[in-house]
Amino acid sequence: MYPSSLAVIGLGAIGGSLAWQARLAGVDRVVGYSRLPAEGVEALKVGAITELADTAEQAARQAEIVLLAVPPQATLDLIESLAPVLSPGSVLTDVCSIKEPIIRHAIAAGLGDRFAGGHPLAGTHQTGFPSASPERLRGCVVYICETGTPAGHRAATGVASFWEHTLDASPVLIDPAVHDQQLAWTSHLPQGVAYALAKVLAERGLGGVSFGSGAKDTTRLAASSPEMWVDILLLNRSAVIEALEQTQAGLQELQELLSDEDRGALVEFCEIARRFRLGIDR
Amino acid sequence: MYPSSLAVIGLGAIGGSLAWQARLAGVDRVVGYSRLPAEGVEALKVGAITELADTAEQAARQAEIVLLAVPPQATLDLIESLAPVLSPGSVLTDVCSIKEPIIRHAIAAGLGDRFAGGHPLAGTHQTGFPSASPERLRGCVVYICETGTPAGHRAATGVASFWEHTLDASPVLIDPAVHDQQLAWTSHLPQGVAYALAKVLAERGLGGVSFGSGAKDTTRLAASSPEMWVDILLLNRSAVIEALEQTQAGLQELQELLSDEDRGALVEFCEIARRFRLGIDR
Repeated sequence: MYPSSLAVIGLGAIGGSLAWQARLAGVDRVVGYSRLPAEGVEALKVGAITELADTAEQAARQAEIVLLAVPPQATLDLIESLAPVLSPGSVLTDVCSIKEPIIRHAIAAGLGDRFAGGHPLAGTHQTGFPSASPERLRGCVVYICETGTPAGHRAATGVASFWEHTLDASPVLIDPAVHDQQLAWTSHLPQGVAYALAKVLAERGLGGVSFGSGAKDTTRLAASSPEMWVDILLLNRSAVIEALEQTQAGLQELQELLSDEDRGALVEFCEIARRFRLGIDR
Repeated sequence: MYPSSLAVIGLGAIGGSLAWQARLAGVDRVVGYSRLPAEGVEALKVGAITELADTAEQAARQAEIVLLAVPPQATLDLIESLAPVLSPGSVLTDVCSIKEPIIRHAIAAGLGDRFAGGHPLAGTHQTGFPSASPERLRGCVVYICETGTPAGHRAATGVASFWEHTLDASPVLIDPAVHDQQLAWTSHLPQGVAYALAKVLAERGLGGVSFGSGAKDTTRLAASSPEMWVDILLLNRSAVIEALEQTQAGLQELQELLSDEDRGALVEFCEIARRFRLGIDR
């Protein structure tokens, strides 16, 4: 599906990139809205959007695809406020890192036939339109979740086709509950660990000392937007809590092996970690 | 100090880079030794060293500066075996991430007047000569630790001058105990956390799923050499265990805030982490 019109609500790192790329790919009409006026003006100036709307509702009217690129709580709120104004033929989608609560909310808002969830694996700790780029989403994996109705299936097929053909990404259809469980480990856990590690370092009072690239990479995610991440962690909290518990157990195991000076078991512990880490680069 | 001859024992990412850069900076004679013959041949071929020795002892003879670029346990062993063969005027140094046990060992081996510890903040998860580069050490902070004798002070001054003038790095004199305590938090803790997180993910059985750049960065250090890191973690274990305990407490706090759905406190938790993380980029 190559839409003739697209509305993008939220023009940050993801929304801004997506609008920009769609525009460059030839989508005629790309209407943008941002609650930050300066962001909208900037997007218009560089040609990432063709029109800047004054409200989300105004942007959403008469667009073939309406895409929400805002944090999860704002996504839930917009699903509710946009449901009455969506054109009959248009499809609503989002880019949140949690999917089950979003899909459930869309169904409750009467959008079971016109909503499909999306989640591109193209996150960054950077925020705002200055970190948007028409290349950010190219080639990324994007998870697509259906509402479960036949019309919802058609909506999801359209959204997947938009990601594949307009944005040159790789859509993967996934059950929303499976998605949220998987992302609790592959994304939300590393995010929580980075926040916890950075907070512990902050409170140790290491002012002025040098940090190498290792500490910087391990805590990079802690620079991400708290507003967005607190939404995600809360909406996926039972799975995230389980993952955090397992990680505490992992740290405890490492600590005990160090106390016992058990070199052989320590090397094995690190080897398991190393093989895993080398494996995900493939 | 611009030495006329340098011996480098260990030609991996750090030793190989250091030999190569010293050679390009004009050190006449750079003798290398690696327990991996292929690594030595490669270093000779690209001109990172001028001579390849058959043993560490042979390399160390008649070099003005003898630099050990091997993991901590091998460093301790070499300090002992090289002590009897070092030329009277030469200085021995190392690049390990722990300093107090190394300095203590050098003093016990009778090298209190001719040893100075070094630790460049230029680590990488990559290993071996293929990851060496004559640019790796340029501009890095390098910690220098003294043995405490007047002659040891002269040795440390010479080693610091070598890092500054030959290798274009920034030497910082530091007490070895202070160094080890600081590095437990700034380096050894992130390393332990990356290993524990990667091990937990490995054991969750997530085969085949996609990991984004966030998970990859947070676990990047887990790809590092277990041999080297088990040495470091063991030699600095009491400080590392304290840091791991604090991190478990941080994860526990995050987990409880999620259980309580305490949005305000969660945002504050993440903001403390975020401010810290943005601060270390400066």
